[in-house]
Amino acid sequence: MSSKLWGGRFSVTTDKAVEKFSSSIDFDSALYKEDIKGSIAHSKMLSECGIISREDAKKIEQGLLKIEKRIESGDFLHDDSLEDIHMHIESYLTEEIGDAARKLHTARSRNDQVGLDIRLYLKTVINEVVEGLFYLRKNFYEKALSNIDTILPGYTHMQRAQPVSFAHHMLAYYEMFTRDASRFFDCLKRFDENPLGSAALAGTPHKIDRKRTTELLSFSTYTKNSMDAVSDRDFVIEFLSCASICMMHLSRISEELILWSTSEFSFVTISDGFTTGSSIMPQKKNPDIPELVRGKTGRVYGSLVAILTLMKSLPMAYNRDMQEDKPPLFDGAKTLLSCIDIYNRMLPEIKINKDRMLEATKSGFLNATDMADYLVEKNVAFRLAHEITGKAVALALDKGCELENLSLDDLRTISDVFDDDIYSYLDIEAVVDKRKSLGGTSRENIKNELKSIAELLDEEQKNFNY
Amino acid sequence: MSSKLWGGRFSVTTDKAVEKFSSSIDFDSALYKEDIKGSIAHSKMLSECGIISREDAKKIEQGLLKIEKRIESGDFLHDDSLEDIHMHIESYLTEEIGDAARKLHTARSRNDQVGLDIRLYLKTVINEVVEGLFYLRKNFYEKALSNIDTILPGYTHMQRAQPVSFAHHMLAYYEMFTRDASRFFDCLKRFDENPLGSAALAGTPHKIDRKRTTELLSFSTYTKNSMDAVSDRDFVIEFLSCASICMMHLSRISEELILWSTSEFSFVTISDGFTTGSSIMPQKKNPDIPELVRGKTGRVYGSLVAILTLMKSLPMAYNRDMQEDKPPLFDGAKTLLSCIDIYNRMLPEIKINKDRMLEATKSGFLNATDMADYLVEKNVAFRLAHEITGKAVALALDKGCELENLSLDDLRTISDVFDDDIYSYLDIEAVVDKRKSLGGTSRENIKNELKSIAELLDEEQKNFNY
Amino acid sequence: MSSKLWGGRFSVTTDKAVEKFSSSIDFDSALYKEDIKGSIAHSKMLSECGIISREDAKKIEQGLLKIEKRIESGDFLHDDSLEDIHMHIESYLTEEIGDAARKLHTARSRNDQVGLDIRLYLKTVINEVVEGLFYLRKNFYEKALSNIDTILPGYTHMQRAQPVSFAHHMLAYYEMFTRDASRFFDCLKRFDENPLGSAALAGTPHKIDRKRTTELLSFSTYTKNSMDAVSDRDFVIEFLSCASICMMHLSRISEELILWSTSEFSFVTISDGFTTGSSIMPQKKNPDIPELVRGKTGRVYGSLVAILTLMKSLPMAYNRDMQEDKPPLFDGAKTLLSCIDIYNRMLPEIKINKDRMLEATKSGFLNATDMADYLVEKNVAFRLAHEITGKAVALALDKGCELENLSLDDLRTISDVFDDDIYSYLDIEAVVDKRKSLGGTSRENIKNELKSIAELLDEEQKNFNY
Amino acid sequence: MSSKLWGGRFSVTTDKAVEKFSSSIDFDSALYKEDIKGSIAHSKMLSECGIISREDAKKIEQGLLKIEKRIESGDFLHDDSLEDIHMHIESYLTEEIGDAARKLHTARSRNDQVGLDIRLYLKTVINEVVEGLFYLRKNFYEKALSNIDTILPGYTHMQRAQPVSFAHHMLAYYEMFTRDASRFFDCLKRFDENPLGSAALAGTPHKIDRKRTTELLSFSTYTKNSMDAVSDRDFVIEFLSCASICMMHLSRISEELILWSTSEFSFVTISDGFTTGSSIMPQKKNPDIPELVRGKTGRVYGSLVAILTLMKSLPMAYNRDMQEDKPPLFDGAKTLLSCIDIYNRMLPEIKINKDRMLEATKSGFLNATDMADYLVEKNVAFRLAHEITGKAVALALDKGCELENLSLDDLRTISDVFDDDIYSYLDIEAVVDKRKSLGGTSRENIKNELKSIAELLDEEQKNFNY
Repeated sequence: MSSKLWGGRFSVTTDKAVEKFSSSIDFDSALYKEDIKGSIAHSKMLSECGIISREDAKKIEQGLLKIEKRIESGDFLHDDSLEDIHMHIESYLTEEIGDAARKLHTARSRNDQVGLDIRLYLKTVINEVVEGLFYLRKNFYEKALSNIDTILPGYTHMQRAQPVSFAHHMLAYYEMFTRDASRFFDCLKRFDENPLGSAALAGTPHKIDRKRTTELLSFSTYTKNSMDAVSDRDFVIEFLSCASICMMHLSRISEELILWSTSEFSFVTISDGFTTGSSIMPQKKNPDIPELVRGKTGRVYGSLVAILTLMKSLPMAYNRDMQEDKPPLFDGAKTLLSCIDIYNRMLPEIKINKDRMLEATKSGFLNATDMADYLVEKNVAFRLAHEITGKAVALALDKGCELENLSLDDLRTISDVFDDDIYSYLDIEAVVDKRKSLGGTSRENIKNELKSIAELLDEEQKNFNY
Repeated sequence: MSSKLWGGRFSVTTDKAVEKFSSSIDFDSALYKEDIKGSIAHSKMLSECGIISREDAKKIEQGLLKIEKRIESGDFLHDDSLEDIHMHIESYLTEEIGDAARKLHTARSRNDQVGLDIRLYLKTVINEVVEGLFYLRKNFYEKALSNIDTILPGYTHMQRAQPVSFAHHMLAYYEMFTRDASRFFDCLKRFDENPLGSAALAGTPHKIDRKRTTELLSFSTYTKNSMDAVSDRDFVIEFLSCASICMMHLSRISEELILWSTSEFSFVTISDGFTTGSSIMPQKKNPDIPELVRGKTGRVYGSLVAILTLMKSLPMAYNRDMQEDKPPLFDGAKTLLSCIDIYNRMLPEIKINKDRMLEATKSGFLNATDMADYLVEKNVAFRLAHEITGKAVALALDKGCELENLSLDDLRTISDVFDDDIYSYLDIEAVVDKRKSLGGTSRENIKNELKSIAELLDEEQKNFNY
Repeated sequence: MSSKLWGGRFSVTTDKAVEKFSSSIDFDSALYKEDIKGSIAHSKMLSECGIISREDAKKIEQGLLKIEKRIESGDFLHDDSLEDIHMHIESYLTEEIGDAARKLHTARSRNDQVGLDIRLYLKTVINEVVEGLFYLRKNFYEKALSNIDTILPGYTHMQRAQPVSFAHHMLAYYEMFTRDASRFFDCLKRFDENPLGSAALAGTPHKIDRKRTTELLSFSTYTKNSMDAVSDRDFVIEFLSCASICMMHLSRISEELILWSTSEFSFVTISDGFTTGSSIMPQKKNPDIPELVRGKTGRVYGSLVAILTLMKSLPMAYNRDMQEDKPPLFDGAKTLLSCIDIYNRMLPEIKINKDRMLEATKSGFLNATDMADYLVEKNVAFRLAHEITGKAVALALDKGCELENLSLDDLRTISDVFDDDIYSYLDIEAVVDKRKSLGGTSRENIKNELKSIAELLDEEQKNFNY
Repeated sequence: MSSKLWGGRFSVTTDKAVEKFSSSIDFDSALYKEDIKGSIAHSKMLSECGIISREDAKKIEQGLLKIEKRIESGDFLHDDSLEDIHMHIESYLTEEIGDAARKLHTARSRNDQVGLDIRLYLKTVINEVVEGLFYLRKNFYEKALSNIDTILPGYTHMQRAQPVSFAHHMLAYYEMFTRDASRFFDCLKRFDENPLGSAALAGTPHKIDRKRTTELLSFSTYTKNSMDAVSDRDFVIEFLSCASICMMHLSRISEELILWSTSEFSFVTISDGFTTGSSIMPQKKNPDIPELVRGKTGRVYGSLVAILTLMKSLPMAYNRDMQEDKPPLFDGAKTLLSCIDIYNRMLPEIKINKDRMLEATKSGFLNATDMADYLVEKNVAFRLAHEITGKAVALALDKGCELENLSLDDLRTISDVFDDDIYSYLDIEAVVDKRKSLGGTSRENIKNELKSIAELLDEEQKNFNY
């Protein structure tokens, strides 16, 4: 018989195969802390409401805390026949305290229990992410602080366009990761609701007190509709969306670090601890960390697509498909946290090659716009100013030099508006410093910006005890 | 020569082919209103700062308003050689007002201009989405209001589990779409920043007043870093994430409506205006609208993946790839808005078949849990209560009836705790009404919930003038 | 200092953190068999070409086989400082055989080595998938074989449309999985090329014999361009595309099984071993396996998106990002194989409720088209025939019956073309059997189709020794 | 009433809104040619089988050909109330030829009709793609042919690793696009089956001849199962998978062209026709075309995700969701074809800066491996050879020179094995030419490879009449 043959190949009985297939203990054991925390709050509330005795509640709490320690000490056996972490813990609890354990599940279902555990887990993760992002923003801030006077070409289309301060470039990333942090906060705020008490899908006839568990578990409020509560995974999707955007930002700075580490750019040197080399080609420093982070971007995008696909078209209320929410969530969370961590370690170890950066601003007429602006200030009409500058650039190309290398005589063959003061306009540092429009790259702007960021970071650090 | 041959096949010259390939006018003409609005604010500010004359600013404004009317009256010729909507409008403006038009682009670049236009466009879209969601939530509220007493099976794993009020089921969707609205608001809040004045990437040396354009264009604030401002597309991704989650919710209610429209369920009848039939099979009512909405979910997910892919690994600052942000954004926005609109039209036209729903709750022992609860209240230990109920169910299966059809004598063969009052516990309406835990399905809960929703909706309607 | 603080929190030194972050041993240990096989072939070839001694080659082979046994017996310690499976094995080999081990890597680089290992791994996976699909197709064939006479409604838009044989329905899936198998074969055929000898990216000056390793490793041929060979991951993407399509097919049959298991349909009963129930609601049989398979579809789609994202925009040749190809590949392969396996076990255990299926064909005018066809055969014009049938249906609706319950007198009030023979046309079985166009649902067709499938399966089984 | 208000805003009546929402004529009008071709074949077969008269079939054919011309001349009015292209054409046909038009749909349903049209459309698209890829491969071949002697650094991790011939680099892309062509062929081969005659889902009782339409429409065979035939969209997914992989390849060469166009690399110059510049910065050449192609990669990935999502979990057979298969298919096809076309035009217009490439190979010890190989050939043990080379590199670094600039005296301070002949080993051209292992970068290999490619391309061109 076909299925037997095939079964034979896999050499496990069908019973075991089904258990293995439907078990989630391999991944959801990550939720043990949350499961125990939730159960303690639940049993405490049950006893306060007179649904179970105080004595039983105490036994349950002590039993669960013991199990938590057991698990943390590594004494934990996966058993596919016990399916998931909730059953494992309940089974252990029965071993520990006997009959009282059977009362823990009163007025609760695995549906609201797992909804609770993931929310608790994700609250912890987001707090870690936001803390990680705090240090990441601080790292970019510090990189900026020590590079106010470092000037490099600003690129568009990867072509040199106008000179900018490297501090300005770093603060662009500061902005991105600050937006990320705010996005994660909004996500957390939206799912900061206790689903416990929604039971299987319809609520429970037991006279429980959902406000009490909400308080015990430090949620802002409780969910308003039991069917929604057990079938909602919006927060997993929203978290993975936020994570995808954050990874996208990390992929952009990674791309830049990889570029800047090439022989051709040589703008930065990543310290040995974060690169790999070759014993025989000692100059080779492979920027492995940024490459890996760039690659891991796909992994987080993939997790987002996985959960979006999973939730598509599921009817109310809980469906077993939802068990598959955890692998993409856990993998996405772990990947994101590890990428932020490694960046926090690597960024301070990146050496900025100021001279190479500055040198790169010296060719390519990055100051051409400023020659036109000079003329406009001397009351030359805008279009004419552009035309004159075009001719100056042509002349410079012809002579194989930059604009600032043209003599005043040369310039006057094109227009007699030019005067000695033109050279100060063409100076690269001046070009940077003139861009004083709000958000522009002038060093004055940057210093102001750095000051307000420093205050902001200080305040955050105080408020959150990072 | 190969490329000629191939070119020959396509029968356009390379010049035209390159123009066509790189032009975005086919889709970005959708931004004409925003482009004109932004240009008027920019020129007004320029004149207030003394960078252009008041006269020129006036000419520019009048010219632009004229062009807006021309476009709205259909007088608009796409020309690939003018690339995009910005160039089209500038070219029209030059036709209209001559030289003054050339001054409009002072202290501005296409990079900050397009960043502005998309932000303005998306603000409008999100306001429409949130308004659409307001009516969608109201529709679910009204469906609930008129169906408090409609009872149907609540399903888990698509198996009948416990009876719930149809109002409760509808309010689960109310919750989802309320979360969606809050998510779109957060998205809007985060990108409500004016990028104008960031110029190409580094800011501008012109003495512009970014706070003034911020005010004129009703932004909350202005962007803080010019490089970030021109290369940021976070808001497109975040919007499409929100849209994907919202479409996922729509796909779930669509799946349910399709299910409920089958002969097998027959829980609802969608009115003829929203279904297609067959001249020869008059009973056939294909639920085309929910099917199409379910299908369009993929389209919005796809748009999200498109923009995530696009932004991965792009170095600073603007890259031409970013032109491709618009097709997924526009298609995603249009798709979402049309799905919300059609649902707002269809929902009131869905007839609820109360009798069929109620009938479905009558078989399948949906009240078994409540028999156990009855016993618990009579001081039977929880586990024993379950065991007794199990036996009662077995007996009922044996007799081919439901629990409530067992006689008291029958029940007493199992346990003498049973008394006459058991039947009131088994009544389906009672089963629903006992679930009074917060968020549970009891009609008392639902009425309270409906009251607070009504107040909330009223207030929103007042505040937003929907 | 920020990074220290953050580092402190994570309580590992940066060295260890970098090692951990960049190590792949956690997942690529799955490749140990392929790595050893590839190394044995490489060293054999090296010795045959006189590049290393026969003695060394023998030592290497024996050492590697010993390591293979060690690993299989569980004696394998992960060490992040050894990065990946290739380094682990080489390090073990040095322990085992000393200096000879250092010669193994002559004319080889990790770039071609890992390219080889994944190709070998994927060849094995695809062979297992195709074998699994063989049994899956056989299971659908057998389900069809025993259900030729089982008639159920064919649905479009989930509305009953025309009666079909359940065998026909099952053979639709046979077709899908047959296409899947052919798709996997094409994928395999395309990457069945030996990359070994491409070295780091440019080939090697050593006088190796790539045809020999190609032969030893049973590849069809060798790769033609060393740069392409080390940076090609097309086969991972193509495999995950094939896997996504196959999972999509599994999600469709899963959806149908879940539907058919509802109380409302009750078309099938999945045996207890594959469902979960509730002690208190004994009729409840949650179709967990199909639900989980449906949910896992998202996981495989996500893996596809992960690798597509990863490969986007990578310049030549090897980049470290590519290390991240393995988690989605391995997870995708494992998920697909386990879903096929569980289906092969479950399908024979599904009971078909023929009576319920047949009953469902009895209401809804599924034979209306056939009444029109009857009239056409009696020389009534097509349009008129449809009109007459429309009237008959209206009459039947009016009387609350089906078409076949209308008396001849009733029918003759509409058209006198009707005669006694009309009833044989309306018989549901006749409706099925008349559909004799190739590929249609008539039982005659199905029997022919089953015969050719049986022959095909027999032949395949012989050729592949399944 | 809420929905009215909302409806009012959109200012269309619900009837029109539903029509607009469910209509597909905006996009499926692209199928007019295929629809007409299919209908002509269908009516011809019907008349040959005696189901309609020869006269009617002739009228139908002539009417359809007239409509085709009308449409091609632009005389085609979209009317949402006619839903789709099939209804538009049938309605036109009725206008043209009257009653005979009503017979065309005998033994056919829109379900098999649309299945046919997409398959015909996709066959044309794939033939165009494969032809486009033929010229693309030829372009890479020609770029290789004229650059056998152009040497540039081969990179791994974007770090210079070993010198390679630019021809070798180009042929890596030749390999990728050759695989792509084979993948598209396999896709076509798999869906080259005629679905016509499957009718709504169950086949038809009319005595049609499916083999005849198969022949008339040049399909290889016909579909075997009517339910599968109308609900199968595997080919759309498979095509978009192939397209995604092909776009990924295009994104890689695009990334390289963008890199090589930077001031820092300056390896290539893309001609003016394919770049945009700035009037004021004349040296600026933005590589817009490669940037846009890189960006469009996301669009095709998104289309793939859209259709994968759509098909997930759809029960048998046709569901209206499937109407949404066309926007991603059409957009994906158009995007891919336009990217291939533009590359075929651009590639010949790219100037290779040989001197810059060669110069880049001169620093970075790209010949270090070859020094070690030299020593090995002089019978120095492999590990010792590496050690010696390491010391030589250290000395060179110390002296600020390359290996070939060390004097023989210098080298002999490290090892007396060095002799005069070492310098020929270190020569960059020699380093390239020694890599004669099959697939390696030696110019001898490349010439052989180019010869066999030339033959292959010639043969293909003959067979396919490109």
